[in-house]
Amino acid sequence: MLGIETTIVMPEDAPPAKIENTRRLGGTTVLYDRHSGDREAIAREIAAERGCEVVPSFDHEDIIIGQGTVGLEIMQQCDELGVTPDQVLINCSGGGLSAGCAVAIRALSDDTSVHTVEPAGFDDTARSLVAGHREHNEIPATSICDALQVETPGKITFSINKEILSPGLVVTDAEVREAMRFGFRHLKLVIEPGGAAALAAVLSEKIDTRDKVTVVVLSGGNVDVKLFASIQSEQLTGP
Amino acid sequence: MLGIETTIVMPEDAPPAKIENTRRLGGTTVLYDRHSGDREAIAREIAAERGCEVVPSFDHEDIIIGQGTVGLEIMQQCDELGVTPDQVLINCSGGGLSAGCAVAIRALSDDTSVHTVEPAGFDDTARSLVAGHREHNEIPATSICDALQVETPGKITFSINKEILSPGLVVTDAEVREAMRFGFRHLKLVIEPGGAAALAAVLSEKIDTRDKVTVVVLSGGNVDVKLFASIQSEQLTGP
Repeated sequence: MLGIETTIVMPEDAPPAKIENTRRLGGTTVLYDRHSGDREAIAREIAAERGCEVVPSFDHEDIIIGQGTVGLEIMQQCDELGVTPDQVLINCSGGGLSAGCAVAIRALSDDTSVHTVEPAGFDDTARSLVAGHREHNEIPATSICDALQVETPGKITFSINKEILSPGLVVTDAEVREAMRFGFRHLKLVIEPGGAAALAAVLSEKIDTRDKVTVVVLSGGNVDVKLFASIQSEQLTGP
Repeated sequence: MLGIETTIVMPEDAPPAKIENTRRLGGTTVLYDRHSGDREAIAREIAAERGCEVVPSFDHEDIIIGQGTVGLEIMQQCDELGVTPDQVLINCSGGGLSAGCAVAIRALSDDTSVHTVEPAGFDDTARSLVAGHREHNEIPATSICDALQVETPGKITFSINKEILSPGLVVTDAEVREAMRFGFRHLKLVIEPGGAAALAAVLSEKIDTRDKVTVVVLSGGNVDVKLFASIQSEQLTGP
């Protein structure tokens, strides 16, 4: 929108639709192997070569502040509805979205708990919150949630999250797939796997929602047609 | 929601997902052949047998008023954005949604034109508006828009529509499919064929939108997984 030249470093197994959309919007894409490559190092190298600024994906104060506007919107919209959320569930990878949202939400309501939701195998934040320090995932793990795969929480994000987050929740791939079907059938929304983890936590009863105002963040719709169609065509078992 | 027993008379070629959802919500479904059967007559017969009230699908003052709340919401939301719509495009079958919306919109803004959008082969409202009286479609016609297939506009709806609607627009099945792909890729919304006709009219430039505030109503997401997946997998040609 601002006509600034951008280079986006993305895992090579990102959904083709996401890669294609990035290019269509004018970004140059550099793909790397998420198991052997170091995204931050690649980005720093490109930035040094071309005299660019590195914009990290989560572990930076400005990014956290920007993502925190989601939390602000949640509180404003709840206020318009005349309710205060008891709990907010947020899909979590490096912890930027959850840190930003939690700061905004807790600033406005002491009575609202904020929970991260991660895919099984990538529950580094949930375990780190228990341990009190940054834990690592066993790599290679696999998950359908391509956007929620980091090895360990960010330094800055975790220093915030450990102070204000409630216990993290974990969901399986099967629960995520069911949530994506729920989105298609009942919400009429296209949700990508990593965007559906928080919804999956509610549907699979990872947290008690009875008599509680629960807010779920659906944080993305970058999913490939083929994967989406195959998930939607599976046996329906849910509500 | 009110625990009232309901029987829904639906065309037998309605999307299985729509039929299934109706039953899941507690409705009894009676299916009929849309080419040989008369929906209104079937409903009247059932109502007489069981002592029920017939709720018509479009040609009734209360239905039109109810659907008109969409027009009210459009004007309220535009007002919040600080704009007045120049034109509003509404998917049209029997004309209830368009009549209700047009009444609400024109009551609040003389400067906003309201256009119906119909699938080719079922452009009875567009032709009726030109003729000044209710025209009939050549039956059997076919269209991917299962929800936009009536033979002729309603009596009550057309008596309203002929007074306040601007010329009707017509779209092809291919244009509707492209709009459904646009919905998936860019809006992250599941739109049924009949719900995507108005969007198709904009994308295929059936109306000039340059420097104009244009509102498009997406009026439904009842689409079968199989059809949805097959449409999404087709060659992408659009924006």
